Amino acid sequence: MKRSMTSLLVRAAVGGILASAAGAASAADIVRHSLGPNNNFPIARAVQVPAGKTIFFHSGTTPAPLDPKATPGSPEYWGDTKTQALSVFARLKESLTSLGLDFKDTVAMTVYLVGDPAKGGKMDFEGFMAAYTQYYGTKEQPNLPARSTVQVASLVAPGMLVEIEIQLAK
Amino acid sequence: MKRSMTSLLVRAAVGGILASAAGAASAADIVRHSLGPNNNFPIARAVQVPAGKTIFFHSGTTPAPLDPKATPGSPEYWGDTKTQALSVFARLKESLTSLGLDFKDTVAMTVYLVGDPAKGGKMDFEGFMAAYTQYYGTKEQPNLPARSTVQVASLVAPGMLVEIEIQLAK
Amino acid sequence: MKRSMTSLLVRAAVGGILASAAGAASAADIVRHSLGPNNNFPIARAVQVPAGKTIFFHSGTTPAPLDPKATPGSPEYWGDTKTQALSVFARLKESLTSLGLDFKDTVAMTVYLVGDPAKGGKMDFEGFMAAYTQYYGTKEQPNLPARSTVQVASLVAPGMLVEIEIQLAK
Repeated sequence: MKRSMTSLLVRAAVGGILASAAGAASAADIVRHSLGPNNNFPIARAVQVPAGKTIFFHSGTTPAPLDPKATPGSPEYWGDTKTQALSVFARLKESLTSLGLDFKDTVAMTVYLVGDPAKGGKMDFEGFMAAYTQYYGTKEQPNLPARSTVQVASLVAPGMLVEIEIQLAK
Repeated sequence: MKRSMTSLLVRAAVGGILASAAGAASAADIVRHSLGPNNNFPIARAVQVPAGKTIFFHSGTTPAPLDPKATPGSPEYWGDTKTQALSVFARLKESLTSLGLDFKDTVAMTVYLVGDPAKGGKMDFEGFMAAYTQYYGTKEQPNLPARSTVQVASLVAPGMLVEIEIQLAK
Repeated sequence: MKRSMTSLLVRAAVGGILASAAGAASAADIVRHSLGPNNNFPIARAVQVPAGKTIFFHSGTTPAPLDPKATPGSPEYWGDTKTQALSVFARLKESLTSLGLDFKDTVAMTVYLVGDPAKGGKMDFEGFMAAYTQYYGTKEQPNLPARSTVQVASLVAPGMLVEIEIQLAK
């Protein structure tokens, strides 16, 4: 009887301490640092991922053809930058859902854009942003990732203008 | 005697709980999510790295010259995309071995290819894949990384066509 | 009295074990693996981040204009590669300070350079290195990151030649 009481005490004490440690761990939230008071561009300056989180490395995602019957590689086949970016985000949404994740869990993003022939060979940054802002920095989904955006020479298929890579944490 | 028994009980209880916690941690394995049932392209859609793993950030690795006596920057000096990629993977193998790692520990990869003059200035994606598939998605090494592949304008040395960056976890 | 003594014993035992676990965690330091005995290029071959660290994903950082009164996009507006890289590092320093971080905490870096018209359209790697080596591999700050450097087609603004993305851990 004495022993079992001691044992209960031990369990209670240990359980209490471990529970509080676990509480502290889950309390250590992901922190998104803003660009600053005078800059409301919808990306985070930095995202801080505390120990104890699961990190997901997602492959670069490219768009589905807009019109698979058009000439492969043509603008009709792939659509413009905004259209392609929307297709990428739709594909990402499906992927994230199947992983038990959501856009809000994104901590970092690398955007690879290809110069758009219809824009004199420059990347259509505004077209990309028009798609991006439907998924990040909205009322429903205010979480912003750290992000880099660069114009590359080409992606894996001719006419493909958008590839997006993300890392997530939960 | 009573005290020492209590103390033993405490140690047993605490040790048991901590051991089971540690067991749970090591049981949380890295998960590689496939592209889907109808897609056997040899990359992972996403790789999930649970808390408790050590993450390795490896520098971008470039090839060794194929023929150091050839004119620097010439195709003879560096070799084609497949040759350069094989050189990069050979260098990576040596590096990973010295770190106590292996290709199977790769969780993410970024592939930077330069347009091959012999391919009309387009990146030789097939040449790269011919090298990649010797190291990833084989019977001996089935683990696939999340991956992005882009064609950049240039790498650090003229004629260099392949740079590969990887992240690993163990 | 017996109970409280047991309780104290329990706390002491549990506290001791947890403290030693915490000690072990903080003792697991970030390890920077060098390129090798015959290579003193100032980057790490790989950086090893043990479990228990907080990871920071920092957005790609671009320079401030050198002369905001010059024609936007002109070389006078942005300055050359070294000038732009120094501006990026100055901005990063400010950002890291506000995050309670320093350059020494950098574990990985991706450098995106644009071909410099004054260098025949090639990236000015030496110009970038002249800025980089003021912040990494110095006596005061010897910590080196894993790094990849590529020449991209363009960055978000015309004339911008340097974007630097870093990941940090602490």
